[in-house]
Amino acid sequence: MLRTHTCGELNKTYIGKRVTLCGWVHSRRDHGDLIFIDIRDTYGVSQVVFDPKENRSLHDKAHELKAEYVIRAEGVVRQRPDGTKNSKLATGDIEVLINGFEILNVALTPPFEVSDSSLVADETRFKYRYIDLRRPAMQKNLRTRHKIYSAAREVLEKENFVEVETPFLTKSTPEGARDFLVPSRLNAGMFYALPQSPQLFKQILMVAGLDRYFQIVRCFRDEDLRKDRQPEFTQLDMEMSFVDEDDVYKISEAFIKEAFKKALKIEIKTPFKRMAYQEARGRFGTDKPDTRFGMEIEFLNDELKDTSFKIFKSKLEENALIGAINLKGKGDLSRSAIDGLIEKAKSYGAGGMAYFKCEKGRLASNIDKFFKPEELEAVKNKTKAEDGDLVLIVAEEKETALDVLGSLRISLAEKHSLIDKKKHSFLWITDFPLFKYNKDEKRWDSEHHPFTSCREEDASFLDEGKFGKIRARSYDLVINGQEIASGSIRIHDRKIQEKIFGIIGLGKEEAEKRFGFLLEAFAYGAPPHGGIAFGLDRLATIFTGSTTIRDVIAFPKTQKAICLMTGAPSDVDDKQLRELNIKKIGRL
Amino acid sequence: MLRTHTCGELNKTYIGKRVTLCGWVHSRRDHGDLIFIDIRDTYGVSQVVFDPKENRSLHDKAHELKAEYVIRAEGVVRQRPDGTKNSKLATGDIEVLINGFEILNVALTPPFEVSDSSLVADETRFKYRYIDLRRPAMQKNLRTRHKIYSAAREVLEKENFVEVETPFLTKSTPEGARDFLVPSRLNAGMFYALPQSPQLFKQILMVAGLDRYFQIVRCFRDEDLRKDRQPEFTQLDMEMSFVDEDDVYKISEAFIKEAFKKALKIEIKTPFKRMAYQEARGRFGTDKPDTRFGMEIEFLNDELKDTSFKIFKSKLEENALIGAINLKGKGDLSRSAIDGLIEKAKSYGAGGMAYFKCEKGRLASNIDKFFKPEELEAVKNKTKAEDGDLVLIVAEEKETALDVLGSLRISLAEKHSLIDKKKHSFLWITDFPLFKYNKDEKRWDSEHHPFTSCREEDASFLDEGKFGKIRARSYDLVINGQEIASGSIRIHDRKIQEKIFGIIGLGKEEAEKRFGFLLEAFAYGAPPHGGIAFGLDRLATIFTGSTTIRDVIAFPKTQKAICLMTGAPSDVDDKQLRELNIKKIGRL
Repeated sequence: MLRTHTCGELNKTYIGKRVTLCGWVHSRRDHGDLIFIDIRDTYGVSQVVFDPKENRSLHDKAHELKAEYVIRAEGVVRQRPDGTKNSKLATGDIEVLINGFEILNVALTPPFEVSDSSLVADETRFKYRYIDLRRPAMQKNLRTRHKIYSAAREVLEKENFVEVETPFLTKSTPEGARDFLVPSRLNAGMFYALPQSPQLFKQILMVAGLDRYFQIVRCFRDEDLRKDRQPEFTQLDMEMSFVDEDDVYKISEAFIKEAFKKALKIEIKTPFKRMAYQEARGRFGTDKPDTRFGMEIEFLNDELKDTSFKIFKSKLEENALIGAINLKGKGDLSRSAIDGLIEKAKSYGAGGMAYFKCEKGRLASNIDKFFKPEELEAVKNKTKAEDGDLVLIVAEEKETALDVLGSLRISLAEKHSLIDKKKHSFLWITDFPLFKYNKDEKRWDSEHHPFTSCREEDASFLDEGKFGKIRARSYDLVINGQEIASGSIRIHDRKIQEKIFGIIGLGKEEAEKRFGFLLEAFAYGAPPHGGIAFGLDRLATIFTGSTTIRDVIAFPKTQKAICLMTGAPSDVDDKQLRELNIKKIGRL
Repeated sequence: MLRTHTCGELNKTYIGKRVTLCGWVHSRRDHGDLIFIDIRDTYGVSQVVFDPKENRSLHDKAHELKAEYVIRAEGVVRQRPDGTKNSKLATGDIEVLINGFEILNVALTPPFEVSDSSLVADETRFKYRYIDLRRPAMQKNLRTRHKIYSAAREVLEKENFVEVETPFLTKSTPEGARDFLVPSRLNAGMFYALPQSPQLFKQILMVAGLDRYFQIVRCFRDEDLRKDRQPEFTQLDMEMSFVDEDDVYKISEAFIKEAFKKALKIEIKTPFKRMAYQEARGRFGTDKPDTRFGMEIEFLNDELKDTSFKIFKSKLEENALIGAINLKGKGDLSRSAIDGLIEKAKSYGAGGMAYFKCEKGRLASNIDKFFKPEELEAVKNKTKAEDGDLVLIVAEEKETALDVLGSLRISLAEKHSLIDKKKHSFLWITDFPLFKYNKDEKRWDSEHHPFTSCREEDASFLDEGKFGKIRARSYDLVINGQEIASGSIRIHDRKIQEKIFGIIGLGKEEAEKRFGFLLEAFAYGAPPHGGIAFGLDRLATIFTGSTTIRDVIAFPKTQKAICLMTGAPSDVDDKQLRELNIKKIGRL
């Protein structure tokens, strides 16, 4: 090594020691005769001193040093004079008096300062990612991410999981998202697809008797990118044979627990709570509730069943849901603030929204005169309103009402800082519907994917055509209101798999063409199996407290799927395309 | 879990215990009244017994069981009767008397038996990979591979390496091999390339101050496939800042040592021997010598400098090399066997080959009369020939002679079983030439890649145009005669990097277009850095004693880059291509 120590490890115990440090010039301060340089590496910052009384020529040469020069400096560790110590810095008690150094590399003036506090446009950060990544926060993000990976492997290896790599150049079986395609040069006119997930391969590995598989693996979706989507993303993928839901929960919880311990030194409690999909929707208006705060949805249909308030009355006749949330202590919101909330409710799909303030033990509002006192009292009791609270009420078709109240709940919690960001909430959502009705295409789609099995009690509905009633053996892990993992106990019976394909409108021929190899594998002794996949970008975002997955990905792409640093994607030679038996055509 | 125990763990200590096993019907034997089933899972095989005296209806149902059915069976562990124990099996002392079972899945008759000894055509194995992978040897291969990965991560994490994922959708910078291309839908006419290696990204990570990076990562090369190549392959990739060669050797050796320990329970000795490229070529005729056996090349130019044997004489005038190897104890090879060797030498590029048998203390041959006795004596001494040995001599232009003798050496060792396959040889090859002359294109190419730095002592040759004399700071790790890893101390100076691009004929504009982002990064404070990449497919092949990398890859492709199981690559909808702004054209 060109260094004897890193820039983060020197402290009082090293005083008097001769050391050599390597790193980047973080800052230079000229104090009278002395020149102070902070040298930075990934482990920390050390202060070195050039004293002309010690070595005149070195001191002269130190004047050349500019920000981000790479240097190697040799000297002796000494105590900093009293009054100059920096208790915020691990190395703040000492400095290194330099008696030899060399410039390993010079640097142009960087486009922005290497500091967590420098505000820089995303475009600049991505173009000069090698400078952006030098910032301590970004270095820490990547290390935290690595610790999550390390925890996963440690837990899974202990439990006999085998890491198996599945192909990247595989078969196009589009479901949900578009595939990225790769033309085959050796097979003209044929294309590989980059995998959207290793789903089929991991099931095949169970048929192959691997028993317990895992992989930390890149997946690809060619979608129009939203803020928190990237064309490539990373999953912790796993699958087990001869299991039921509890086994998957247990291993998943062990992983999350170890990750929190290893990466954040936080001890979390397991097992996690579980909640059925219907309950989550009803209480929180979403299938990924953030349970770090209350403000749960209350159903007021019973309380208002005889209401003479016209709007509610007619909604009730349409079988609507009257739902409310109680925004504690915000009864003093101004009329215009409340109007803002109503607009927000409308943007989420509501036709309108009623509100009541709780004052002097009763609910008051511009419409309270339309309600009987006992109705107001019943609503007050149901929503547990106390003086100073604001009760918001939506009456809409059930799913719409839940969507609106669920979105409003999150938005209000963010706005009024009701979430303790130091807390973490963990929740299994279970019993998802197996199918959802696709109104546009007038057919049933899989809620998760078509390889999900259904609960034994509901299996008869498959033949009876009661598709909407069937509960799946699927589960999501929700952390802080974000879906972090999703999985299911799979179908392992060829006939049932074919039946499901049929229900979602995949004809026999089409199913054979796309999934024939899976169906065939099922015919040769497939064990019962199940698994789960964790979205590691999102999990790392939670662990690092980042606001976007781009802050936990070393080289992210923009919303147009461009890498601003390398310029990918780029034009290629016509010769290259010719060899691949394709040519460009104009944009549609 | 549907089971209480695996099929590999039951032994005498479980006698009397009630257990539930899940697995595949490996075999069924009907012995008089009793039915014996071997149940198999990835952990082993257990014998279960159906006794009609215990349970008639279960016994009847057991008649349905066929090979590869998946079952769940419940019973009590008991000692096998004397004379029926199987000491080869971990579970061979016991059996399970069944009092309950269910068929979890049926199976068609498999196309081949699930057994290590069944000989099956590759095409069948690949098509039914899920059956092929059930074979114990294949299961073990995948587990061994995983243990190598686990060892790598354990060693590197302990040494502060950070695992960072680099992009798969990246920029096409073809070097050496063809890139796989991925059309961009969002950027019409533009293409991503799948990475041939993360070389540029890992260097960028060093510029970003990450200090120590590693990744186990898939790489892609669109080449015409030879037996031991796959379009996608896996590297253990690493890079470190502020290091020299010794640091890279040390961490690499620690990894290999731990992998041997963890995967094979073998303690190997480190550090590994080192040998300069020139020495390896001279002694073994290759830059990846197998040092598990001798038969080294001897140069006879001094011994034969005054020879009157015409062929050698004229070769010497052309500055040729006269080189020999001594095939110990094979002086009794028949004339036709020796003719075969001469043909082989010719196939390797020699014009011919001379040979001498050592008999009665002297070298004898059909051409010995053309040599002086003292010349024969000198050759005998140099090649350390003893009675019964066969000395083979080639006189050719130096590189050709070395190629021929090196290839002959390996081929003879294989044929005459001179290699102790239980031994492993480890060797660092150092001091490769930085450039090699490309005769066809009449220019200099990089021997490794253009990011390799040169030895300080040779740096002046860069400006003097003595490109053939420059030694690189590069190194290969050779195990058992196979190149397993390759790396170098890199260039970190923008000007030198530009100079190298110039020497290999990359114009300024072209260099900018392809590698501009690297050159720019180098301008902002790049540290000295170096690294290495291990070919994990090949390493796993050595660890498992396999003859092809396909036996350590779960889902390999054929030589035409086809996956026989899924049918990838496949045809895709024209609509998909239209969205990607490309169309198919006829084959060239």
